[in-house]
Amino acid sequence: MALKKKPVTGMKDILPAEMQIRDYVMNLIKETYRGFGFSSIETPCVEHIENLTSKQGGDNEKLIFKILKRGEKLNVAEAQTESDVVDGGLRYDLTLPLSRYYANNSASLPMPFKALQMGSVWRADRPQRGRFRQFVQCDIDILGDPTFMAEIELILATTTLLGKVGFKNFKVRINDRRILKAMAAYCGFPEDKYDLVFIILDKMDKIGMDGVAKELEESGFSKESIAKCVEIFENTTNDLQGLAYCKEKMADVMEEGVAENLETIITNVENTTTTSFDMIFDPTLVRGMSYYTGTIFEIEMEGFSGSVAGGGRYDEMIGKFTGNKTCACGFSIGFERIVTILMENGYTIPNEKEKKAYLVEKKASNELLSKVLKRAMEERAEGKQVLVSQMNKNKKFQKEQLTAEGYTEIKEIFFDTEEF
Amino acid sequence: MALKKKPVTGMKDILPAEMQIRDYVMNLIKETYRGFGFSSIETPCVEHIENLTSKQGGDNEKLIFKILKRGEKLNVAEAQTESDVVDGGLRYDLTLPLSRYYANNSASLPMPFKALQMGSVWRADRPQRGRFRQFVQCDIDILGDPTFMAEIELILATTTLLGKVGFKNFKVRINDRRILKAMAAYCGFPEDKYDLVFIILDKMDKIGMDGVAKELEESGFSKESIAKCVEIFENTTNDLQGLAYCKEKMADVMEEGVAENLETIITNVENTTTTSFDMIFDPTLVRGMSYYTGTIFEIEMEGFSGSVAGGGRYDEMIGKFTGNKTCACGFSIGFERIVTILMENGYTIPNEKEKKAYLVEKKASNELLSKVLKRAMEERAEGKQVLVSQMNKNKKFQKEQLTAEGYTEIKEIFFDTEEF
Repeated sequence: MALKKKPVTGMKDILPAEMQIRDYVMNLIKETYRGFGFSSIETPCVEHIENLTSKQGGDNEKLIFKILKRGEKLNVAEAQTESDVVDGGLRYDLTLPLSRYYANNSASLPMPFKALQMGSVWRADRPQRGRFRQFVQCDIDILGDPTFMAEIELILATTTLLGKVGFKNFKVRINDRRILKAMAAYCGFPEDKYDLVFIILDKMDKIGMDGVAKELEESGFSKESIAKCVEIFENTTNDLQGLAYCKEKMADVMEEGVAENLETIITNVENTTTTSFDMIFDPTLVRGMSYYTGTIFEIEMEGFSGSVAGGGRYDEMIGKFTGNKTCACGFSIGFERIVTILMENGYTIPNEKEKKAYLVEKKASNELLSKVLKRAMEERAEGKQVLVSQMNKNKKFQKEQLTAEGYTEIKEIFFDTEEF
Repeated sequence: MALKKKPVTGMKDILPAEMQIRDYVMNLIKETYRGFGFSSIETPCVEHIENLTSKQGGDNEKLIFKILKRGEKLNVAEAQTESDVVDGGLRYDLTLPLSRYYANNSASLPMPFKALQMGSVWRADRPQRGRFRQFVQCDIDILGDPTFMAEIELILATTTLLGKVGFKNFKVRINDRRILKAMAAYCGFPEDKYDLVFIILDKMDKIGMDGVAKELEESGFSKESIAKCVEIFENTTNDLQGLAYCKEKMADVMEEGVAENLETIITNVENTTTTSFDMIFDPTLVRGMSYYTGTIFEIEMEGFSGSVAGGGRYDEMIGKFTGNKTCACGFSIGFERIVTILMENGYTIPNEKEKKAYLVEKKASNELLSKVLKRAMEERAEGKQVLVSQMNKNKKFQKEQLTAEGYTEIKEIFFDTEEF
């Protein structure tokens, strides 16, 4: 009755070396975010299938691991469709469960509520290198704060964390969905085509202004609109001046206060951060999720493609779920991505415990063993990591293994050892 | 399109106050066990359905949350039985996944391997007060150490942890399955009825010696056997003397070395622990799981019924799964039970961060806000928990809420505040 030894397709066993880094980063996250007044919360990994398939999850709803009904409710032989046999599913993100959690518990929660969630999510994605079907997400969200204070705190907390992990040379890019919309209106793109314009704009990083202009042309937009668009982007610098330029140019079409709001966020973050990074106004930043209603932001790191963190304001989403409008703003760091980067760079955890091992010969007396154990307990109390183990027959191999695990001091205790 | 607000049946949302205690205890566990040389590992929450239903899980196999096949592999309309539509399930414990993990990864792991697992498990149990369908288990296991060293380290680690959590007056009860068997043989109970004898013996705590004798009688065992049994238990004290008595009385039927092994464990634990607890030889300790092959142990706490931790040696189990015999010994603490006890006793986390809040009036200038944020960042760097938030219209309520959350210093910042 041998077991299947491999994990299920697309999921992985985590070995001690990776686990040590994961534990360390998780701790740093909880510690840092707690310092900013975020409270840890947790929801069950299983959610009602009705909630998971309520059309809020976009393509992720196609990737749900579904859970079979149990007991009398299940009749496989007579079932015709999936919904006859399924009543739950594994969560595909932490945002949907947060909405349900807030709807269920808001009476017991402070206002505004600063939530920290760290937990596994599951997506039955096509397996591919470095992407797994179970992975950890890490979200901070501020519910019930309509002001720029939410954005400032989210950005300060996330950048402080990345600094503590040891990352340098990263960039926070920020934009506002309402600036994107104003830009599209100013250029005269047809309103029902805004989403297409944004999808093309989003490629600015990769294909440049010329490429964007070309794609806009190929999509049939008017030369006049494209020319206006090029003019805007060529004259917008990635700083407060660029923001002021946008504000002035699009004064007639931009919602009041949007540019000032962004300015307040950028200024206050720059004035108060204790971590070194660049704060960049990026009018081409789009971010895919359709639920964002205002500010959007992303963090990218030199030498690594894609973002390591992303977020924004989504004032309409929770209300759609719960029936009570609740403004919300969140920032999610790519936990798995950060762990991968650290592993690939041979990260060593700062202030690691000193590792010491005692290998005790089998015929050592009880008195001697007790002496060794006592010493080990003292050293553990002093904060060391101490292993006490029987000496293997092949003690050379045992010592090599321990050295590979980072044990720097290995003491052999024989039956007649007196001092150690 | 309102969501279902409640969590799925039998699972729970965890509020910040409980989460804080959970995070703290989890940390303490990882920290303490790491000090003893245990390595964190993790397996996916989803396991192959074949592994979960391989008859190693006993009754838990009836409680599996099963996962639906996906894509082409699924054909609900034509399916006749569960196995036609299911290919995975949520793990019901951490021992089965550990066996698979070890079979899959042993080449990369040290020998002996000291594993620490903390993770959620799922059981579709009948919902009842205080028992949930998703709960955290916390296991330490030593694989590949056939000696008493494993038991000693497991007991020292677990008792050290409980001491650090702040528990006092607990008892470690220890026995050996082989002593139970010797006792049954000595009394002359029929070998095919040993399990029934043990089940009755296990009730000693609740019904006493008289009750046990009565139940044995009602089950049809001979008066002579029962008399011998009563004699043994009445004369066995809960210490090394009692163990010596058992050894002498049952010399002819007890496996060689069993009593000495237990003596070595008890002596060394008592000699070296830095935590205060009672170490008790309990010849009536049975523990339910059929997979135990040698020592068994449990921790109970004064004032709380049931055990807070339990474990033992299971030298045959992993081999059954993997095909390679691997001796193993484990100790599992009742994480949820410990959290419940702490919550019910109004536990306060030691050395908690000082909590401070700044409430900033909306019309405060950017300059003033930056000053407040800067101060907050400094205080966070000093290790305080600092909340910066917009001042609500109903600031009296906001302050009450913050006080309830443990904020001891609340500063109000108005647009004209100069010093704070």
